Amino acid sequence: MAQPSPSYTVALHLKVPASQKAVARLVDTATATGAVVTGVDVAEAGTDTLTVDLTADTRDSRHRGDLVARLEELDGVVVETVGDSTFLAHVGGKIEVVGTYPIHNRRDLARVYTPGVARVCKAIYDHPERAQKLTIKKNTVAVVTDGTAVLGMGDIGPSAAMPVMEGKAVLFKQFGNVDAWPVALDTKDPEEIISIVKAIAPAYGGINLEDIAAPKCFDIEERLREELDIPVFHDDQHGTAIVTLAALINALKVVGKRIEDVRIVLSGVGAAGSAIAKLLMAHGATDIVGYGRTGALSAHDTDGMNQHRRWLAENTNPRRVTGTLKEGLVGADVFIGVSSGNLLDPEDLSVMADDAIVFAMANPTPEVDPIGAANYAAVVATGRSDFPNQINNVLAFPGLFRGLLDTGITEITTSLLRAAATGIASVVDADEISPVYIIPGAFDTHVAEAVASAVRRFAEEK
Amino acid sequence: MAQPSPSYTVALHLKVPASQKAVARLVDTATATGAVVTGVDVAEAGTDTLTVDLTADTRDSRHRGDLVARLEELDGVVVETVGDSTFLAHVGGKIEVVGTYPIHNRRDLARVYTPGVARVCKAIYDHPERAQKLTIKKNTVAVVTDGTAVLGMGDIGPSAAMPVMEGKAVLFKQFGNVDAWPVALDTKDPEEIISIVKAIAPAYGGINLEDIAAPKCFDIEERLREELDIPVFHDDQHGTAIVTLAALINALKVVGKRIEDVRIVLSGVGAAGSAIAKLLMAHGATDIVGYGRTGALSAHDTDGMNQHRRWLAENTNPRRVTGTLKEGLVGADVFIGVSSGNLLDPEDLSVMADDAIVFAMANPTPEVDPIGAANYAAVVATGRSDFPNQINNVLAFPGLFRGLLDTGITEITTSLLRAAATGIASVVDADEISPVYIIPGAFDTHVAEAVASAVRRFAEEK
Repeated sequence: MAQPSPSYTVALHLKVPASQKAVARLVDTATATGAVVTGVDVAEAGTDTLTVDLTADTRDSRHRGDLVARLEELDGVVVETVGDSTFLAHVGGKIEVVGTYPIHNRRDLARVYTPGVARVCKAIYDHPERAQKLTIKKNTVAVVTDGTAVLGMGDIGPSAAMPVMEGKAVLFKQFGNVDAWPVALDTKDPEEIISIVKAIAPAYGGINLEDIAAPKCFDIEERLREELDIPVFHDDQHGTAIVTLAALINALKVVGKRIEDVRIVLSGVGAAGSAIAKLLMAHGATDIVGYGRTGALSAHDTDGMNQHRRWLAENTNPRRVTGTLKEGLVGADVFIGVSSGNLLDPEDLSVMADDAIVFAMANPTPEVDPIGAANYAAVVATGRSDFPNQINNVLAFPGLFRGLLDTGITEITTSLLRAAATGIASVVDADEISPVYIIPGAFDTHVAEAVASAVRRFAEEK
Repeated sequence: MAQPSPSYTVALHLKVPASQKAVARLVDTATATGAVVTGVDVAEAGTDTLTVDLTADTRDSRHRGDLVARLEELDGVVVETVGDSTFLAHVGGKIEVVGTYPIHNRRDLARVYTPGVARVCKAIYDHPERAQKLTIKKNTVAVVTDGTAVLGMGDIGPSAAMPVMEGKAVLFKQFGNVDAWPVALDTKDPEEIISIVKAIAPAYGGINLEDIAAPKCFDIEERLREELDIPVFHDDQHGTAIVTLAALINALKVVGKRIEDVRIVLSGVGAAGSAIAKLLMAHGATDIVGYGRTGALSAHDTDGMNQHRRWLAENTNPRRVTGTLKEGLVGADVFIGVSSGNLLDPEDLSVMADDAIVFAMANPTPEVDPIGAANYAAVVATGRSDFPNQINNVLAFPGLFRGLLDTGITEITTSLLRAAATGIASVVDADEISPVYIIPGAFDTHVAEAVASAVRRFAEEK
């Protein structure tokens, strides 16, 4: 059963009889339903009645309904309002646009707006490269989506994708001091997406493509890289590949194996899977077998594949393995999943080599239950925050773009991605690395700077 | 000769002999060139030498060069760096994107980003109208340009237009608490602009078109109004019309005339001119004659005119006036200029009716010198901040959009524009109105709220 989680925090505003006992009974009753009470505050104290704010983590909306019902059964308790902290955090949106140069008087206005601004416009018109310095371009990234592949939800459209893009912008600012803006496009046509991103580019120093369905995401990215003079990053591919490589570098240290020697089973051959395979191979991996819904991808059967699947089929699987994912696990050293939840039972992992590494990154439900998996593998990681070793893209994109914007690098090469991954891995000191600590936490404030530094060093060495 | 102005503030960093006299000589020398010294600070005091920061307003870059040369001639003075405050205010851009909900820990992250955000996305997918409440749409406006008609500079392109759009965003936030984002498009094709604005619309609760050349700006606006379900405002037309009407309402009170009775000469029949004519007529004006480069527009000669110029020709000029602008001034009560600088000599106004009103709004140089004009007209206003009665769009757009976003009004009608104009005019109390105070100042904090209130009342009365 799922655990109570902060994404289902309920905030209740209720009236209770004015007694210590009544309040204690509230907490007892809530706890008995399995809720985790995280706060009880008296908002107003009357002679007979107290108004109490109670917040608690629940499992889901059903659990929340159950909790409210049980509390209402209590003598003298009236539940006045039921709030949902996740929704409350979204009311009015999660980002705002603020001025960096306050306007207090006419002098300021004359500088920031007319008439002074005209001189700055003229300077950029005469020397276009000055836009880098005199506009937001230097520090601003577009987070572009068409809403066709949002988290685990698929094609939910641009409006419903906005909360993810806004959240991304919050993370960009908080971790990388990068200004990011959501560009949620009401079109699914790749040519139109390409021409729109090109048209809006004057305001931006980088493009972060996000949650666009495969295979069109590949073409959009490739075309934009060719046709724009600012870096174009596809987080679902390259962000995931960076953090996966970072985690693998340290996991291999835990088990004392070399990337050149391990057999890697890759479940999921979409945008993320193919990017992971390419990056791991660039870092030395020699034996990767990719599995889609129909089993192992192999060079002898590439009919009807798009170019990216075909690339995988032709460039991975050197032993010409065929068959199912479960068959492929026999003797494998590493399982990497970017596919879908509950594909495997923990016991399925028993056939893997000794000291196996399992990255089950499907969201929100991993390919295999990570607690069970720990019985069969030496290192287990997921994409979830409620297990150790969370492989989270937030470790990569803020620092990467910080470094890109600082250095002016416009081309995102495999070498650059490797540098970023090594930067993340290096944040965990050699003497700290352990089966439950192969990758730094999302709130480790050193990560973004480590990645940005790695990018800056990469730029210097080029 | 132009006056020293804060848009040409120079910031000098210089070394001077360590004596009271040497510093005084600095200021004297600067003042002797005509510069207005606004600050002298000792940044570092050595035994023999002081390091001094001196800021001064100059007339233009030539004056600035002259100032630096004179100071360097002084004994023992070394000018180390010459900064330009207007440019310094633009370094790094003028806006940033910040989170409204700080992320301190995993609990916050789980709410604002994965996994909690997925529930909010799902809620919007199931109930699209919830995007209004749960995303930035509720408070966010796109400031859209293609850079083809920027201030007085014409077609300088999207990158060079960015400082104006960023400045606009700063004003939106400061005066209306509206989040505005610059959308500077690298295309001049009207169809492409229309389809891009439609595609990006999911993130926005309103569209502010800005500095797009006529006549295509008319078509873009009209099509977007038809095809989008959020308000579309063309500031160069409607913003200018609102503030012009506001100023005229109060100017007519000063001279004791009624709008129905006055003869109005309108110089400039582009986007702004036609919008002004329409709004003034909706407010009761009966006798407007529009003048383009070839003289009075009139219904008997509409060949080759675009539809907007033709509308003006067919719906204004009831007396079928022909001839030049100067001829048209004879007996006119009101001159409104939205054309180009120095079209008229002050003496040309001598033929106007008694108690004439002159709004010379061309930027940066008015159609007629406002100081000279005051010898012939009872009320003079311009678009400049260094004369009384500045007719400035910043009085309209922040409060207007505040009201639109608050009420959910999607259609910008002439009645709405009149309500906004009346709101601005009402900020100047009846007993305060005078020839030099017909319109509130840009920093009058009551204005945006007065306009927003007028819009809210308008929504209630509908």
